[in-house]
Amino acid sequence: MAARLTAVAHDLADAARIETLKLFRSPDLRPDNKAAAGFDPVTAADRASERAMREILARQRPEDAILGEEFGATPGQSGLTWVLDPIDGTRAFMAGAPSWGVLIGLGDADGPIYGIIDQPHLEERFEGGLGIARMIGRHGTVPLATRRGVSLTEATLMTTYPEVGDGTEHAAFRRVADRARLVRYGLDCYAYALLAAGHVDLVIEAGLQAYDVAAPIAVVRAAGGVVSDWRGGPAHGGGRIIAAGSAELHAAALELLNAA
Amino acid sequence: MAARLTAVAHDLADAARIETLKLFRSPDLRPDNKAAAGFDPVTAADRASERAMREILARQRPEDAILGEEFGATPGQSGLTWVLDPIDGTRAFMAGAPSWGVLIGLGDADGPIYGIIDQPHLEERFEGGLGIARMIGRHGTVPLATRRGVSLTEATLMTTYPEVGDGTEHAAFRRVADRARLVRYGLDCYAYALLAAGHVDLVIEAGLQAYDVAAPIAVVRAAGGVVSDWRGGPAHGGGRIIAAGSAELHAAALELLNAA
Repeated sequence: MAARLTAVAHDLADAARIETLKLFRSPDLRPDNKAAAGFDPVTAADRASERAMREILARQRPEDAILGEEFGATPGQSGLTWVLDPIDGTRAFMAGAPSWGVLIGLGDADGPIYGIIDQPHLEERFEGGLGIARMIGRHGTVPLATRRGVSLTEATLMTTYPEVGDGTEHAAFRRVADRARLVRYGLDCYAYALLAAGHVDLVIEAGLQAYDVAAPIAVVRAAGGVVSDWRGGPAHGGGRIIAAGSAELHAAALELLNAA
Repeated sequence: MAARLTAVAHDLADAARIETLKLFRSPDLRPDNKAAAGFDPVTAADRASERAMREILARQRPEDAILGEEFGATPGQSGLTWVLDPIDGTRAFMAGAPSWGVLIGLGDADGPIYGIIDQPHLEERFEGGLGIARMIGRHGTVPLATRRGVSLTEATLMTTYPEVGDGTEHAAFRRVADRARLVRYGLDCYAYALLAAGHVDLVIEAGLQAYDVAAPIAVVRAAGGVVSDWRGGPAHGGGRIIAAGSAELHAAALELLNAA
């Protein structure tokens, strides 16, 4: 059962890799703006990537539900849901930066049980859950394990947007950031991949959607990390998320987030 | 003459690639702090990378001067100076993120004439000057050319640190950032590579050193871009830098930087 599900997930990731790389760094890439105000880009690559994954699921897993960023929710009967973000980090994709990724999560009623964070340009696939925690790359496969025994003052913290949500959220983030040794911005889902691989220690974000977090939660947990919302509750609905390499670091950062 | 110089530069980049990849994402990487206050990391990889390049120059170009981040200035007699940053973006290197690079600039009395921005993990080498403007990657060689005809309101702007220098510098940066369509952070020298490749339109930074900018200036100019300090003067001494894909965009952004 697990082997069948992970085989499907790799098929999805392979298909999305092909579709996204067709337009990555291509002069044919012309983003549309899907926001009423501001700039929330979507590209033909986002749509083609999700479409390719949905076609595979329609053939191989018609009984499962789907939640995708571009084409919404499709109901199922199996109790399993594929949670798809065909390009997480469309802004990075547009800018030619290799921090975007394809997110493939698989969840049941309790939340994510398995996920893939795939970075097609780097040819790096971070996979976690159902007994697996590994990165399959150009030079082979390496196990994923978060870094342990790192205090907050020694920690590297990542987030995508320096403003981190609204004013209250930004202030809470800053309480943690001001204690961390190093803060880095702009890496989208790749930040969670680096956390799972033990290179960074904390990722804190706000304003996320369910499809942004399902796969990262599964991958980080499989690598030994701890993920929750900013109150310590489940994070798979989206919103505010904190992911840490260890339970101790998670607790220390959570306390500061709620110290106001 | 030019072919001999570029051959040496590629030898340097090859040697630095080997040295940096030995420690990238390695558990053996233990950064030292070279700042009296705060955190300014340097690693054994920075030192090994510069040392390997200096050994090649000592053999092949003993008559040239060297300016390197880790081992300082070595005088020469030829009028040419190799400007080396063995790892630009040591913080990204520490975090496992592929936005750091090896910078190899070659300059005469008037400034940079040639440069390489090498990203070893991505196996991408951006090269510009002495009649060359190209990126040599895993899938072949592509010409470098900046994107033209992009107005500020359509532009993608990059900078490494959201704070962008001191308060006055940050305010000046924000005047440009508030007009740009998209602002991305955290890419170090890779931002200039993306500009030269036509994926982003503007890079604006402050607080840089001469070894941070020599190679990026040469690569961006060779690709058709315009680089200066924030007053429109030469940028190769370091400090505040603005790099744009076109003269029109450079002028528009420069006006806003100086609008206070």
